[in-house]
Amino acid sequence: MNKQYESYKNRMRKIADINGAISVMAWDKEVNLPKNGAAARSQQMATLSGMAHELFTAAEFGKELEGLMASDELTTAEYKNVTLTLKDYNRSTKLPTEYVIRRSEAVSEAYHAWMKAREANDFGIYKDALKKIIAIAREAAELFGYEDHPYDALLDMYEPNAKTADLTILFKDVREQLVNFVKVLKEKPQVENSFLSKFYEKDKQWDFGLGLLKNMGYDFDAGRQDISTHPFTITFAPTDVRVTTRVDENDLSNMIWSCIHEGGHGLYEQGLKWENYGLPIGEACSLGIHESQARMWENNVGRSHAYWQAHYSGLQQVFPNNLSHISLKDFYNGMNQIAPNAIRTEADELHYHFHVLIRFEIEKELMAGTLEVDDLSKVWNQKYAEYMGIEIKNDNEGILQDIHWSHGSIGYFPTYSLGSFYAAQFFAKAQDEIPNLVNEISEGDSSNLLAWLRQNIHQHGRYFTPEELCIKITGEKLNFKYFMDYAKQKFGSIYGI
Amino acid sequence: MNKQYESYKNRMRKIADINGAISVMAWDKEVNLPKNGAAARSQQMATLSGMAHELFTAAEFGKELEGLMASDELTTAEYKNVTLTLKDYNRSTKLPTEYVIRRSEAVSEAYHAWMKAREANDFGIYKDALKKIIAIAREAAELFGYEDHPYDALLDMYEPNAKTADLTILFKDVREQLVNFVKVLKEKPQVENSFLSKFYEKDKQWDFGLGLLKNMGYDFDAGRQDISTHPFTITFAPTDVRVTTRVDENDLSNMIWSCIHEGGHGLYEQGLKWENYGLPIGEACSLGIHESQARMWENNVGRSHAYWQAHYSGLQQVFPNNLSHISLKDFYNGMNQIAPNAIRTEADELHYHFHVLIRFEIEKELMAGTLEVDDLSKVWNQKYAEYMGIEIKNDNEGILQDIHWSHGSIGYFPTYSLGSFYAAQFFAKAQDEIPNLVNEISEGDSSNLLAWLRQNIHQHGRYFTPEELCIKITGEKLNFKYFMDYAKQKFGSIYGI
Repeated sequence: MNKQYESYKNRMRKIADINGAISVMAWDKEVNLPKNGAAARSQQMATLSGMAHELFTAAEFGKELEGLMASDELTTAEYKNVTLTLKDYNRSTKLPTEYVIRRSEAVSEAYHAWMKAREANDFGIYKDALKKIIAIAREAAELFGYEDHPYDALLDMYEPNAKTADLTILFKDVREQLVNFVKVLKEKPQVENSFLSKFYEKDKQWDFGLGLLKNMGYDFDAGRQDISTHPFTITFAPTDVRVTTRVDENDLSNMIWSCIHEGGHGLYEQGLKWENYGLPIGEACSLGIHESQARMWENNVGRSHAYWQAHYSGLQQVFPNNLSHISLKDFYNGMNQIAPNAIRTEADELHYHFHVLIRFEIEKELMAGTLEVDDLSKVWNQKYAEYMGIEIKNDNEGILQDIHWSHGSIGYFPTYSLGSFYAAQFFAKAQDEIPNLVNEISEGDSSNLLAWLRQNIHQHGRYFTPEELCIKITGEKLNFKYFMDYAKQKFGSIYGI
Repeated sequence: MNKQYESYKNRMRKIADINGAISVMAWDKEVNLPKNGAAARSQQMATLSGMAHELFTAAEFGKELEGLMASDELTTAEYKNVTLTLKDYNRSTKLPTEYVIRRSEAVSEAYHAWMKAREANDFGIYKDALKKIIAIAREAAELFGYEDHPYDALLDMYEPNAKTADLTILFKDVREQLVNFVKVLKEKPQVENSFLSKFYEKDKQWDFGLGLLKNMGYDFDAGRQDISTHPFTITFAPTDVRVTTRVDENDLSNMIWSCIHEGGHGLYEQGLKWENYGLPIGEACSLGIHESQARMWENNVGRSHAYWQAHYSGLQQVFPNNLSHISLKDFYNGMNQIAPNAIRTEADELHYHFHVLIRFEIEKELMAGTLEVDDLSKVWNQKYAEYMGIEIKNDNEGILQDIHWSHGSIGYFPTYSLGSFYAAQFFAKAQDEIPNLVNEISEGDSSNLLAWLRQNIHQHGRYFTPEELCIKITGEKLNFKYFMDYAKQKFGSIYGI
């Protein structure tokens, strides 16, 4: 192997080892941390982050990368790694230290202001801090640079090469097609799902969730599930990918679909290659593609009739009092109830995208400077009324509901919808290529689906951009049609259209 | 503050942050690690260890320490920190890199050979690897340097300033006084303890153990208890000190006294000062003093009649079937049964020190070169016959039982006995200074004892050497008399002498 490349790889793996340690500490923080341990933990994590950052942004590393780019001894995969690393390097080094410090202060201020505002249910308390966050984000866009729209520079951090122009077309489709379709559903009689809110014993839910994960192919020799306030997936290496869930004794759906969702993330990470550890092609492609894996398992698989043909009788046996009198069809319909909700994280499979649409439109305008923070609450509430017919009663249930902006994350939200849309397109293709897929799922066997995902998505890591990957797999760019087809077929049938 | 001192402190805290991360990973490894995660975990821990070592042994740090030693602007505590750090620095830098590599290879080889030998129950398989370990340890002694006995150089790593000559006198006392006392006990009728080996439900044991920890004053806001194969205590910061235990459904004593023992370690670590984080005076004094805290709680407190006056009725309520017909006196006698056992980790409070005595005598001779590895098994078995009247039936129950040597740890064992002897001396003093102590304990209140330990031991960290600390607290050096007095009084009464 090229000696220079080996030096590059060693540095990348060293950084990955440090990041692995940070991840273990982050996982432990959410799952185990005793109250008084928080301060030391933050300090330890900050020290390690600083060390990883220093190693990654060192000037000599930049020169090494430039040198490697000029080398003609690299394999295609090696060249790809170096190219992607150089892109990351350039982004990391474009932000001057004084900017990074200002940003971290702004984030800390915004997070505390957001917490306070949440307590008081008053956006006014958060306004000034959010203005700073927006200014800082605009500044980042200028520092990173962009061709067309400042928002592009931010989107690229989460979804490589995503463009505001493309997303504008995509979300126009959402607004026009999905809003109308949901209006049609609303006129139909509602399905019943109150049985999901009966009392479901914690331990039994937990065991059932573990069973679902195992059945999906999540490898418990290379991971584990624990309880945390907010479910998440975290990776120390492809050989140790952990998921968390929460269990609400009065809401069965909470546990079931968070298990399957995180399981989908977990399968992706377990499918990355250990031999690529620390290198870009050993990392997930993008947040959107990551989310596609979670959403496909959660919705296209986990909320399908076929899936519950395999698992429902098992669930009934665990909770006979609550479910023995509920038919599979009623259970299936109930889990797929479509009803507007002001809170994004409680949204159903369709309304979810209105929440994202609204955030996308707002972020885009904030970045373009055509919308001011002072008007946010008003604009937010107008959009909720217009797209969902919901009257927002207070700031907590409106503009204050998400933590993302207080973290400085602008451009993150669209990846949630991209995930669902990619999921629909990929799943349609998987059905083409595994002709018996739905039958297999109805028999509790999703191993061919997992193998297909491993083959087509997981193993490649960042080798392809999201768009390249989508074209490679499906023959075309992301196309909203697949999601609409899926939605119409599924919910049309449930709601009798 | 002195600017140079601040730079010193920053480096020490950075190193502590890295070590904190390593500890989190080590804890997780024992408590949570999925099977396939081991390789990545080892690699990540090794990378971080390397970074900490590099920071600590950097030549410029040595110069900084020398500079600080010459400064006249340091407070006494600052001067103490620098002095201790320089001692550690000199030790760390005395070992050339090629030696460190050779040692780590020898350890890796020895560990695997030991595992294999254990499987085959055959010391022969381990012999050659152990010879290398002994040679490497002798080499370390020469590199570190010593005045009197090569073993001194190794002891100092675990028990600062401990001398072979002093330990020789101490263990002569053990051999002469304790061996004889135990012989007297042996002639008395044995106490009954089979009730400890009934079936005790896991969850109930666990809850009872948590209650004992809480009652000791272990702070669950600054720690937690989990299950692991071998109980241990580990510190990420004084604000996050974790203990583990094991629960055997057929052996109540396993859980109870491992809980209390680790709780004693945990209280020490929680009593170190956060303001001294990363600095020598923020670290425990020595392994012997650490063990004294564990042993005092486990034995002097946790196996005392007074302690169970407070806790026995609660235990009976949890396990009425097993214990309602066992009186407090029978329970107390049973937990204090004295009976020889070939296995150190299963030894009672008195026989334990014969195990350590034997290891001390052997290690000392190995270091002096007056005993060869080839003769180890024979010598081991002879000593067990002589001191305990035990016939060792095979290598696993003899020379192969401990992992320590395979890790390269020579000089570690004596700290176990030092712990018990210090514990007896400290506890005698605590009883002098808290006149009502035993009564308080019998009422379930050990808060004055904990306050006394905090005041006299915990808060000082490494400020004093073990000997200085002992003199400061008790007015004299370590004196075996206190342990013998304790043993004679307690076991004389139990065995009716």
